[in-house]
Amino acid sequence: MTGEGGSLRGLSLNQATVQHLALDEAVGLCLRHEIPAIGLWRGKVAEHGLDRSAAAVRGAGLDVSSLCRGGFFTHADPDARAAALADNRSALAEAARLGADVLVLVGGGMVPGSRDLGLARRMVADAVGELVPDAERLGVRLGVEALHPMFCADRCVLSRFGDAVDLVLQFPPAAVGVVVDTYHVWWDSGLAAEIGRARGRIAAFQLADWVLPLPADVLLGRGHLGDGHIDLAQITAQVLAAGYRGYAEVEIFNAGIWDAPPDDTAATVRERFRELLG
Amino acid sequence: MTGEGGSLRGLSLNQATVQHLALDEAVGLCLRHEIPAIGLWRGKVAEHGLDRSAAAVRGAGLDVSSLCRGGFFTHADPDARAAALADNRSALAEAARLGADVLVLVGGGMVPGSRDLGLARRMVADAVGELVPDAERLGVRLGVEALHPMFCADRCVLSRFGDAVDLVLQFPPAAVGVVVDTYHVWWDSGLAAEIGRARGRIAAFQLADWVLPLPADVLLGRGHLGDGHIDLAQITAQVLAAGYRGYAEVEIFNAGIWDAPPDDTAATVRERFRELLG
Repeated sequence: MTGEGGSLRGLSLNQATVQHLALDEAVGLCLRHEIPAIGLWRGKVAEHGLDRSAAAVRGAGLDVSSLCRGGFFTHADPDARAAALADNRSALAEAARLGADVLVLVGGGMVPGSRDLGLARRMVADAVGELVPDAERLGVRLGVEALHPMFCADRCVLSRFGDAVDLVLQFPPAAVGVVVDTYHVWWDSGLAAEIGRARGRIAAFQLADWVLPLPADVLLGRGHLGDGHIDLAQITAQVLAAGYRGYAEVEIFNAGIWDAPPDDTAATVRERFRELLG
Repeated sequence: MTGEGGSLRGLSLNQATVQHLALDEAVGLCLRHEIPAIGLWRGKVAEHGLDRSAAAVRGAGLDVSSLCRGGFFTHADPDARAAALADNRSALAEAARLGADVLVLVGGGMVPGSRDLGLARRMVADAVGELVPDAERLGVRLGVEALHPMFCADRCVLSRFGDAVDLVLQFPPAAVGVVVDTYHVWWDSGLAAEIGRARGRIAAFQLADWVLPLPADVLLGRGHLGDGHIDLAQITAQVLAAGYRGYAEVEIFNAGIWDAPPDDTAATVRERFRELLG
């Protein structure tokens, strides 16, 4: 898909889509299906070893479109807050070692014992600010993600895409960008305008579809592109029009898809990308 | 709670909070607990009979703060659309017979077979416009409700409170207002500004708290006021500052609360109202 004369760099497979594979298995899957990039998760990287993981993706010639994830900054307890910042500095170092384009940040939910959304949002912004020098030194971009409002209380107080845009505009563009995740932001009547406002600021583009019914664990309700209600082509056109030229990273949390043969999943991901966005 | 010299008219119990009671039983419950108003549901009214229901609430001296609900306007099929409008006209007539302050409207989800959110939103606005003459003739106000974005695909394409405000500002204030439901809108960083923009337009104020974890059926995830993450006092102050002087209607969909003794539920509803908003 092209927009204003530009196009996506290509398809990336976020390894959370094939949750049961180890890192080297997910790398092999991308190679077999000619998927040129991968999105990594810190837990999987740690299991395989950081240096071995970096060697695996480099040896396979894969780009690392993102490392998931940092964040969870909303702590009343100073020690917990310091620990979160230290953990995010480790995540930045890991992202640099892996050559990742971006470290995805999920801000954190309501501060324990508080009903003050503004307080929680300020804590996220303050923490991002504290990480900017590290991001600049390491050459890794921080990617601030808005999560669907159903996760506001427990996972991320940035609920509208515009909340994330407001935050990142306070910081240097090379160090801090926004993540567009279709699953989290598709419902927003202000989305097109906010994506326009994010011109030059989009650090990553993640895709999954919204399928019904929601499962008992709403974290796992995502579907293959085209199986649900989101106008993915339209959002992709808006992201391109805002100047984004990176990978389209498919990230699907779905227990049924996790249990499917990974080669079937990769084939479907590639086919849907070509049909809808290629 | 007071704001700009005004206060809420009092507490109303939406009968969905005591789902297992018949209409006359819910009316009796309100009387026993000195709750001066009730929110009714069309299905419960039909079970008890419209005339008998109207006589029951009138005989008890209860105000009817709302009738739930009309809406579900987003149909591609013209017959389905005409049937929805006819059903809403019946609902308006029922609301008038019951002396309800407002008929609550839930717009409807995505149009079947379509991924066009704008189309669905226009269908809702068009349908509301078609109902305005009936609402004016019957002296019943249409109350447009925004639902939480997790219901966007299947129940209501108005996902932000501001979406509902945008819609109602197109119509005469006496005929069309907005419903503020804390459960659906609490997460929105733009809420305070949008409530301000709704000055003179707030037709109903419904309250429930956001409690975690979400249950398997996310329709039933609401909690008693004070048990969850929402700053109910703050939102109430905003609603009062926008000139609202009607009832605070407590509407809690929760299977556990439904199974509790109704007198316990009513006592808790009243106690929490007094603690948080009284």
